[in-house]
Amino acid sequence: MRVISQAFQEISPADFFYRNREIAGFSNPSKAVFSAIRELVENSLDATEPFGILPDIYIRLSSTSNNEVEEGFYSLIVEDNGIGIPGEHIPHAFCQFLFSSKYRLRQSRGTFGLGGTMAILYGQVTTNKPVRVVSSTGDQKIYEFLLMIDIERNRPIILGKKTYNNDEQWHGTIVEISLEGDYPRAKPKIVDYLKQTAIANPYANIMFVDPRGRLYKFERTMSTLPPQPKETLPHPHGVDVETMHRMVRATQCKTLIDFLEKHFHRVGRQTARSFLEFAGFPEDMDPKALKPEEIVRLVQAMRSFNGFLPPDASCLSPLGEEILKAGIVKELEPEFVAVTQRKPSAYSGHPFIVEVGIAYGGKVPVRDDGDITLYRFANKIPLVYDESGDVSWKVIKSIEWRRYGVEPGMPLAVIVHICSTKVPWKTVGKEMIADRPEISHEILYGIREVARKLKLYLSRKEKAKHEKARLSVFAKYLPKIAEFSTKLAGEKNVPDIKGLLRRVRRLEGD
Amino acid sequence: MRVISQAFQEISPADFFYRNREIAGFSNPSKAVFSAIRELVENSLDATEPFGILPDIYIRLSSTSNNEVEEGFYSLIVEDNGIGIPGEHIPHAFCQFLFSSKYRLRQSRGTFGLGGTMAILYGQVTTNKPVRVVSSTGDQKIYEFLLMIDIERNRPIILGKKTYNNDEQWHGTIVEISLEGDYPRAKPKIVDYLKQTAIANPYANIMFVDPRGRLYKFERTMSTLPPQPKETLPHPHGVDVETMHRMVRATQCKTLIDFLEKHFHRVGRQTARSFLEFAGFPEDMDPKALKPEEIVRLVQAMRSFNGFLPPDASCLSPLGEEILKAGIVKELEPEFVAVTQRKPSAYSGHPFIVEVGIAYGGKVPVRDDGDITLYRFANKIPLVYDESGDVSWKVIKSIEWRRYGVEPGMPLAVIVHICSTKVPWKTVGKEMIADRPEISHEILYGIREVARKLKLYLSRKEKAKHEKARLSVFAKYLPKIAEFSTKLAGEKNVPDIKGLLRRVRRLEGD
Repeated sequence: MRVISQAFQEISPADFFYRNREIAGFSNPSKAVFSAIRELVENSLDATEPFGILPDIYIRLSSTSNNEVEEGFYSLIVEDNGIGIPGEHIPHAFCQFLFSSKYRLRQSRGTFGLGGTMAILYGQVTTNKPVRVVSSTGDQKIYEFLLMIDIERNRPIILGKKTYNNDEQWHGTIVEISLEGDYPRAKPKIVDYLKQTAIANPYANIMFVDPRGRLYKFERTMSTLPPQPKETLPHPHGVDVETMHRMVRATQCKTLIDFLEKHFHRVGRQTARSFLEFAGFPEDMDPKALKPEEIVRLVQAMRSFNGFLPPDASCLSPLGEEILKAGIVKELEPEFVAVTQRKPSAYSGHPFIVEVGIAYGGKVPVRDDGDITLYRFANKIPLVYDESGDVSWKVIKSIEWRRYGVEPGMPLAVIVHICSTKVPWKTVGKEMIADRPEISHEILYGIREVARKLKLYLSRKEKAKHEKARLSVFAKYLPKIAEFSTKLAGEKNVPDIKGLLRRVRRLEGD
Repeated sequence: MRVISQAFQEISPADFFYRNREIAGFSNPSKAVFSAIRELVENSLDATEPFGILPDIYIRLSSTSNNEVEEGFYSLIVEDNGIGIPGEHIPHAFCQFLFSSKYRLRQSRGTFGLGGTMAILYGQVTTNKPVRVVSSTGDQKIYEFLLMIDIERNRPIILGKKTYNNDEQWHGTIVEISLEGDYPRAKPKIVDYLKQTAIANPYANIMFVDPRGRLYKFERTMSTLPPQPKETLPHPHGVDVETMHRMVRATQCKTLIDFLEKHFHRVGRQTARSFLEFAGFPEDMDPKALKPEEIVRLVQAMRSFNGFLPPDASCLSPLGEEILKAGIVKELEPEFVAVTQRKPSAYSGHPFIVEVGIAYGGKVPVRDDGDITLYRFANKIPLVYDESGDVSWKVIKSIEWRRYGVEPGMPLAVIVHICSTKVPWKTVGKEMIADRPEISHEILYGIREVARKLKLYLSRKEKAKHEKARLSVFAKYLPKIAEFSTKLAGEKNVPDIKGLLRRVRRLEGD
């Protein structure tokens, strides 16, 4: 046997995402310009709302092409009034993959902490231009950086750095990148995305100036922010061996019972006690004395113990029925709308809430294929690509819509919002939510609930239509009947039938 | 303004994939056991076929649960006769993310080089048990390692190492992992996957022993291997600024014309010359003297220059019409089958070939929803999850099937195989192919081609049915007519009409 040698190679995370940028949503110039805007806008929202700041976001995309060869090149600026990033962290936060402030158990829009860096990388490999970042946390200094990514080493390259005095205590971040793109093709998706973002974030001011100078303005319609999502502890049902190892390594607790009570979500003294009894571990055992196989046993026991309370949803920040309804009414001006918020649920220890709306008539669009229009949101971000691979679409297709009086081709929209500390994304590009049975169950029941209300509305409408038709028959023949009867009775004056018709109408209206 | 501090953190690639294992196909115990088998089998195929070895792959999944708490735990062994991995590379190749032999421009099944490591990581975090790897390249030694992954540092931990003499010059790899799984739920997908793998790799022997001891045996039906895919150079249309920088840094060439001719796919002296003239660069310029902005200009000119030859497909290894047809016939035993191989095409400088088959009747299944059954393959691997998000499904749904005589609920299957040096995956889990216009175009034309053949078959069949009906009417009335005519003519003997009927049948059969 001839020995065949293969070349082995280690690549950096930046290099991995550079080689596989399709998986992060940068698959072609049209998708890339969409994804760049989306990632930067989501970073801006994550830097404002969760910290109690009403978001002001300004986006400008301008063409930098000045000849035919350079067609399709843009400059993108996104500016926000967020909490800013400390000067010393700016280069790494923007130009290093897998460096982020987002690795926490809290509901946020971005979760992988690589979207912004991916946009910068894409700009760099298509234009070779650096990113410009200006930021301040509201302290004495404003920092301005010119940065590139050393892709092979996954490190920032600092090309320039300036500081300014911040007398007005401005806080926020401005990011400016150059990139190849295809705005004409991306435009409908970008506008859809911003519109829907405005629906789900009605407390935000969003301004977008497009390459032709058109201004899209989405003004804040309310100035109260939703309750801030709290950081949470891991729930015992969602913990695996690796997490348990890390927790044991890091804890200061000296006994297992203290350890459980302190580091786990919704585990009190009493629950910890009955769990340890169930699992067969002494309460006063030192967590650091656990042997590897004991850790495995502890984790397995946690999964099968039924005495834990379900995760609570105080760490979540749903839209609420009021905001959801207002957003739908504002955007679709429907003839009928119903919304519902499902009770909090959990999958693998991660809490989530599903909110569902249904809208009929008015400006609700009718799809060419006759299907129902679906608007999907996850942690308040709209998902506008890859609908058919999403759990919500699967649920919609599984429903026997005729039972709810729905026929193909009706102007009908379903709105689904899922919020969670951990949205089960199928892709790094955050376009599709995976089909976890707990989640599809909640979506299904949510849709059924609003669909029943729609059915009631439609059948009332249908009935009213029938009655109207019946009455118009009445109204048509009653004068004739009255006339004949008058003649037959040898009377001269035809009785007034208006009162009669009114009475019939009232009776029917009951 | 209160300054809010955020905690920034760098995580390792191993930690990233640990936290986001859903994106790599390890979202729940059922999917995980499927993905673990799939990733290891694909590594085995990649270690055999491309190196001229007829694959022998043995898979065993056994339950390790011996009580109720431990339900759903398995041991998985995958053994192959591949080229093996040199001893010094084993720990890194298996237990370090982004370390691989697969970062090359060549058609291969695995492309991210992280599937096997992901399976090992999943096993580790669910069972805390090490992976056992035995491998030899066929030289004097066989190596056996017990390994775990240091997830926070992305490094292998060597728990044990042995070497054996390899007197029989055995080569291959054995991987054994422990993992949590749900075989009963995963079984249909696993069996489908292996069946379809056998269709696309008929030169492989694949044996699978499942936890209940059932043996699934897919025996090789041919012993000639397809031509080995060659490694290729980048095509000028697919090169970005970063790649160009790297090439310039690495080249030994002293002039631009040499540089272009040596390092690019299908660029000869003449093409290089006319391109440089088009782009406005001197032929004898030293590539290392290119300034950053000149590199950008060079790359842009490469995109817009129309004089490059399209990528050639010698680096691809399609199935071929014969193998494709044989596989379909073997598996579906259809009444009708047609296959086609499209001409090589390219997207962003990556060559690809689409092969399409259509099968009707026989054992072709009928779907509950009346839709067409779709079998998808990419680089000879079957894709069995997330059909609705795939480009092929999108194309199928866009076709007006009635034009081809196809009605909902027919036993009809479409088979699509895409091979490329770079399959545009949507996800790290390699389940869906992205909708690149060049690819969907080839799929559409391929399907139309075979659908036309099906239409011809179906209309012939329909016609034959009609004729049969017509003839049976003839056959029914002709004797009566003959009888009457005989009587009318005053004759006694009714003429023999069998010859007449036979002649009509012959005429109709033309």
